[in-house]
Amino acid sequence: MERLPGFRDFYPEPLPSNENWSADVRQMIFSTWRSVAQRYGFREYDGPPLESLELFTTKSGSEIVGQLYNFTDKGNREVALRPEMTPTLARMVATQERHYKKPIKWFAIPQLFRYERQQKGRLREHFQFNADIFGENDPAADAELVALLIDTLRAFGLNHEDFVIRLSSRNAWQEFFCKRCPDESKAYEFYQIIDKMEREDPVKSDALLQALGFTLEDVKAFIAAGIPNAELQSILDNLKSRGLSEYVKIDYMVIRGLAYYTGVVFEAFDRKGEFRAIAGGGRYNNLVKLLSAGKVDLPGLGFGMGDVVLAELLKERKLLPKTEFGIRAFCLIEDETLRYASLALVQSLREKQLGIDYPLTATKGDKQFKRALELNARFTCRVERDAAGAVLVRVKNLATREEKILPPGDVATALA
Amino acid sequence: MERLPGFRDFYPEPLPSNENWSADVRQMIFSTWRSVAQRYGFREYDGPPLESLELFTTKSGSEIVGQLYNFTDKGNREVALRPEMTPTLARMVATQERHYKKPIKWFAIPQLFRYERQQKGRLREHFQFNADIFGENDPAADAELVALLIDTLRAFGLNHEDFVIRLSSRNAWQEFFCKRCPDESKAYEFYQIIDKMEREDPVKSDALLQALGFTLEDVKAFIAAGIPNAELQSILDNLKSRGLSEYVKIDYMVIRGLAYYTGVVFEAFDRKGEFRAIAGGGRYNNLVKLLSAGKVDLPGLGFGMGDVVLAELLKERKLLPKTEFGIRAFCLIEDETLRYASLALVQSLREKQLGIDYPLTATKGDKQFKRALELNARFTCRVERDAAGAVLVRVKNLATREEKILPPGDVATALA
Repeated sequence: MERLPGFRDFYPEPLPSNENWSADVRQMIFSTWRSVAQRYGFREYDGPPLESLELFTTKSGSEIVGQLYNFTDKGNREVALRPEMTPTLARMVATQERHYKKPIKWFAIPQLFRYERQQKGRLREHFQFNADIFGENDPAADAELVALLIDTLRAFGLNHEDFVIRLSSRNAWQEFFCKRCPDESKAYEFYQIIDKMEREDPVKSDALLQALGFTLEDVKAFIAAGIPNAELQSILDNLKSRGLSEYVKIDYMVIRGLAYYTGVVFEAFDRKGEFRAIAGGGRYNNLVKLLSAGKVDLPGLGFGMGDVVLAELLKERKLLPKTEFGIRAFCLIEDETLRYASLALVQSLREKQLGIDYPLTATKGDKQFKRALELNARFTCRVERDAAGAVLVRVKNLATREEKILPPGDVATALA
Repeated sequence: MERLPGFRDFYPEPLPSNENWSADVRQMIFSTWRSVAQRYGFREYDGPPLESLELFTTKSGSEIVGQLYNFTDKGNREVALRPEMTPTLARMVATQERHYKKPIKWFAIPQLFRYERQQKGRLREHFQFNADIFGENDPAADAELVALLIDTLRAFGLNHEDFVIRLSSRNAWQEFFCKRCPDESKAYEFYQIIDKMEREDPVKSDALLQALGFTLEDVKAFIAAGIPNAELQSILDNLKSRGLSEYVKIDYMVIRGLAYYTGVVFEAFDRKGEFRAIAGGGRYNNLVKLLSAGKVDLPGLGFGMGDVVLAELLKERKLLPKTEFGIRAFCLIEDETLRYASLALVQSLREKQLGIDYPLTATKGDKQFKRALELNARFTCRVERDAAGAVLVRVKNLATREEKILPPGDVATALA
């Protein structure tokens, strides 16, 4: 029996040659995400991977159903595996926002699921770092969020030569649109054309734009000028004061396809343009209201960063961390009459928080030593008895080959 | 819109009064599980939460489908959310076992899903600590696994007065059975009666037993005697050498309902008997063979410990850890002309791995100070300028009320 296509197994390192996903690397990515978020004062939350289907269709329209893992549960509920975290988050915030002081700064590391046609680098599940802020309209919140995104990528060893945040604004586009087209109901259609422009035949984009009363030339000139509007300028100034200017640029090409963005939007890309977007996000001031049926009105903004593109980029840049798997000591048991004394030593060392292993059964000495090396043990310990029958422990540092003979009570310190 | 019944939201602390599940406590439980497993030399793995339905029915029979979240995906595959981790693990081990030296010692912290009737303390999802060993037949492996289980519970502050491991053996029951009944095909039926005996009407149990040629009296005498067989004695001796005797007892009442256990089985219970089993496991020497269609034959054993019963027990024993949420410093910005200088300070402190927050927008001084307290800040920092215009930082320890005025470069050290 095999795993489902588009899903991953995470194996311990060193990985088999035909497996790509390491549980150790995943844990390191999660730890980095968590620690940068906490440095920024973001608090962790999580919700259920399964939610009512309506939560997702309310936010994204019924077209999204075609991309979901959705089904009817045994209680006749229409449910779906979460394809993104924002609806769950908006639901949670709407339910309990009165309990939390604003601004609310929260993060999560959910696994997300989409039934999509299989493509290279496109799986059916991934883990995503989500960070969001609620209750603050000022662009200072957008700047704080973008700074977090930058510092998250920097924490993996990426720098301004590796990636850039392309910063844009729905408000700037809105202004552009309103100056040229009186019919506001066409705005979303217009944004969709801009969103697809980078990949679309220019002749087709031009035709679509002209149908709405625009020209490709005019749109291109607006993008090329890239003049920050007031909110974007305030974000640029804010980031400059943090010394992060070289990580961002204004790029009106970015508009984000989704209907619910209301202000600043942004995406993180590798500078060489070899990968899909590393992260993306923006402001969604109406979403909590929409998902709480009008009960709670709270501005929000956030971004998501998936583990798949990030891991591919880190691998390509040789920044995938060497995972430091390995135990502190392997306890050799060469004389089986000393097994119980050895187990007592193992137990006492583990109780001092040290990673310790030993041969479960009688094993030849050379095989034991090989095992110690496989497990990346830094020391070996061997229980011995002196002439008077007292237990002593021979501790060997495998790097320096230095040996010491110690009473059991002194071993933990010697292994530190 | 609400969350689905039987599913949990995990909120940041301090929790709203009508929420029970804290993301901070969950993270602490996961960290403890992870660190004890690593002390014991177990390596982390994970697999997909969605698997082919066949993986679960092959192991547990088609009856299990009634308890699963199963459905047909958009590629016409019969799939299910994992109700337990062992089938996925056996699949992963069968696929890659040649790459890993034996014994294989692995752990995982999966979220598991069962569609069950809602009961108190019975949810439709939970997180489970799973630890397993492959490739070792000797009871020394069972002892190592039980020791890990004991030390995991001890790591939460529970001691031998709080919990006990009830240790039993399918082999001991097999011997009892074979001495009295020649028809081995009835053995599983017999085990099922024993498994249900504790909750069943004795008259009914007796009738069922007599139909197989046993008496309740005879069975009860075997349980009451509780004489360890050779493998259980070897485990008891092993645990004794580790000083863990008082955490285990022989209890043949435990037999574990599942068909696939082949040797030692065990369950962890609170001594007062107020909760469901905290953990359970045993040996399943034929499972890898079954799930690999005979290709790989590898003995295995493992246990699972859920987060729900554990959290309830810790709460009742007042052992739920105080989560140490809180930032290192809150940077007060009372003079808006110093905002950018303050942001530069915030950035430099965060780059030194410190948890720092600040008011996103212009805020009254007393509200800022209140916010610092809400966020459990240990220090406040305030950027000032001296007469010559140089930036200085006033650092205040909120516990001791001690204040210092420092150049920006010295602040990180002062906050340590």
